[in-house]
Amino acid sequence: MQKHTAISTIGEFGLIERIKELVNFRVDDASLHDNLIMGIADDAAVYRPTPGKVQLFTTDAFVEGIHFDLTFTALKHLGWKLMAANFSDIAAMGGIPRYATITLALPRKISIEMIEEFYNGASFACKKYSCLLVGGDTTSSLANMVISVAVTGEIDEQHVVYRTGAKPGDYICVTGHLGSSVAGLKILQREKKLFTDSPNQDKFRPNLEPYKAAIEKHLMPEPRLDLSRILTQQIKVNAMIDISDGLASEVHHLCKNSQVGAAVYEHNIPVESITQRIAEEFSQNPIDYALYGGEEYELLFTLGDDEYEKLEKLTNDVSIIGRITDKSNGIELIRENGESEPLRFGGWDHFKS
Amino acid sequence: MQKHTAISTIGEFGLIERIKELVNFRVDDASLHDNLIMGIADDAAVYRPTPGKVQLFTTDAFVEGIHFDLTFTALKHLGWKLMAANFSDIAAMGGIPRYATITLALPRKISIEMIEEFYNGASFACKKYSCLLVGGDTTSSLANMVISVAVTGEIDEQHVVYRTGAKPGDYICVTGHLGSSVAGLKILQREKKLFTDSPNQDKFRPNLEPYKAAIEKHLMPEPRLDLSRILTQQIKVNAMIDISDGLASEVHHLCKNSQVGAAVYEHNIPVESITQRIAEEFSQNPIDYALYGGEEYELLFTLGDDEYEKLEKLTNDVSIIGRITDKSNGIELIRENGESEPLRFGGWDHFKS
Repeated sequence: MQKHTAISTIGEFGLIERIKELVNFRVDDASLHDNLIMGIADDAAVYRPTPGKVQLFTTDAFVEGIHFDLTFTALKHLGWKLMAANFSDIAAMGGIPRYATITLALPRKISIEMIEEFYNGASFACKKYSCLLVGGDTTSSLANMVISVAVTGEIDEQHVVYRTGAKPGDYICVTGHLGSSVAGLKILQREKKLFTDSPNQDKFRPNLEPYKAAIEKHLMPEPRLDLSRILTQQIKVNAMIDISDGLASEVHHLCKNSQVGAAVYEHNIPVESITQRIAEEFSQNPIDYALYGGEEYELLFTLGDDEYEKLEKLTNDVSIIGRITDKSNGIELIRENGESEPLRFGGWDHFKS
Repeated sequence: MQKHTAISTIGEFGLIERIKELVNFRVDDASLHDNLIMGIADDAAVYRPTPGKVQLFTTDAFVEGIHFDLTFTALKHLGWKLMAANFSDIAAMGGIPRYATITLALPRKISIEMIEEFYNGASFACKKYSCLLVGGDTTSSLANMVISVAVTGEIDEQHVVYRTGAKPGDYICVTGHLGSSVAGLKILQREKKLFTDSPNQDKFRPNLEPYKAAIEKHLMPEPRLDLSRILTQQIKVNAMIDISDGLASEVHHLCKNSQVGAAVYEHNIPVESITQRIAEEFSQNPIDYALYGGEEYELLFTLGDDEYEKLEKLTNDVSIIGRITDKSNGIELIRENGESEPLRFGGWDHFKS
């Protein structure tokens, strides 16, 4: 069993010293180190922005009991995922991440070893996507654990992609596959319940192996910084957003911001076989996982026919799922039988009653 | 009584729309608006940094039950104070704030009206100190309320002041007065207890008026961006830190970072008469409030004699409280009777057992 050392044994400042060691890693992009004048060791971090670039600035928070369940989420995965969620916002603008801060509100049950795990996961994501951890705040919490990350990024001004640029006639595309993150979550929740209900918990072994791909997508999603670069530097997409609250919600956001309508074809939504299999086990529709699941961190974007022709030659990891239409057409889902219906606005809403 | 509308009536996206309206204010520094290309309406904010300046980046979080008690803290004050705490970190580097993001983890008891109050307070601070709110994240919370703010700032690279520059022989100075924030908190806590214990709560009226100055300092502290400019642009200070965890703790941090010792003279620590009066009521030492109280957001800095002579002509809101010494001398507190003792390292530690 893992050691469990109370944070009170080293105190807040001891914890900060430990965190300083944990974030003292190198990334491949040496310019991040060269331009960082002061990291975690003063009242604020200090860095030189790259001349001529504009700055991106985003934040995302995860709350215990809402975004994660510590009974089946390792702190290492949590660290990765929160960084990935923020990097995904940078990717959705076409940029690259640069520097990040982390604030942690920690209940007593969280040990030093768990914090180390968290920073190992966060650092792993930072090393992979070239971002430096340069500041933060650590505080206690009386109840649940809350983590908030802020990230700055950079991009040439002319390459920034907004939600506002979609035009009638554009293809609507997504990267990767959708629905597997929520499918993985369903399995984790089912196995947790089986464990809780088990008369002999010591001998309980969760059955996760057959669902590994979906569970990994849920616990360690990859921000699409790879495709984001291609979409903004090598071709020209008109509008882009990341899929954090489910495809349906993001299509609505993009259309609202661009003042357009959309026709999304159900049978074109890319869903992996593992997701179909899990949905079957739960007697649910895998398309609903894609439309209303969320936490995918894939990208939704629109572009003209000519640009799509160029894109096809650069990657096979994107799918056309529909067309942007006139605003007056509304936002439609075309079912496999050809019938259309309004695409219900939905997705994860934190304040649903 | 104030209206109490559940956030679930408008949902997360309704709340975001409302927040967008609340942060749509103008500040005096037009360059902030001119350089902001995208605020809260996309995956990340986009802004042009001022050419030639370096960027500052800091974050600070407040947790219900740890940093604030909603029974005596209005959300408006909370919004102000969290912005002030972050601006204070920017001030401690010598910079000016530019753009900020806010993440909110909200339990069910928080109403739309309370969120509006919070943003009114935060906006009030932002307007006063010229900072734009450009992003954020809102989520529910199963238990306590947690708020996290990240702020970027700017400064000429040659004007940045670190914690590392203090030299033996330097004067140690502080801005304003110390100890009144915790004195104000003591009164608020006492009146809360009297209210809770009161047999007739309807008729209970807290006795706050005589302590107003201290309570204001606790609820609406001012970041010292005014003096920070003078200290870095008009004279040259060698090291600086803001006083968020109490003077003793900050002297230790500054000395540790600069590899020096210090002699702090008890009788030179600036304490207002209201703080002395409150400490007397509680039979406590007002100097302990200054040393171990915290949440003041005054600045602690060191500078040479010549620079102090210049500073004296520019402001009378700073006090010399001691001298930087050799590291081997340690960090001493010189009592009024001339006796010296090690300055106990202390202050607010979030993980004390």
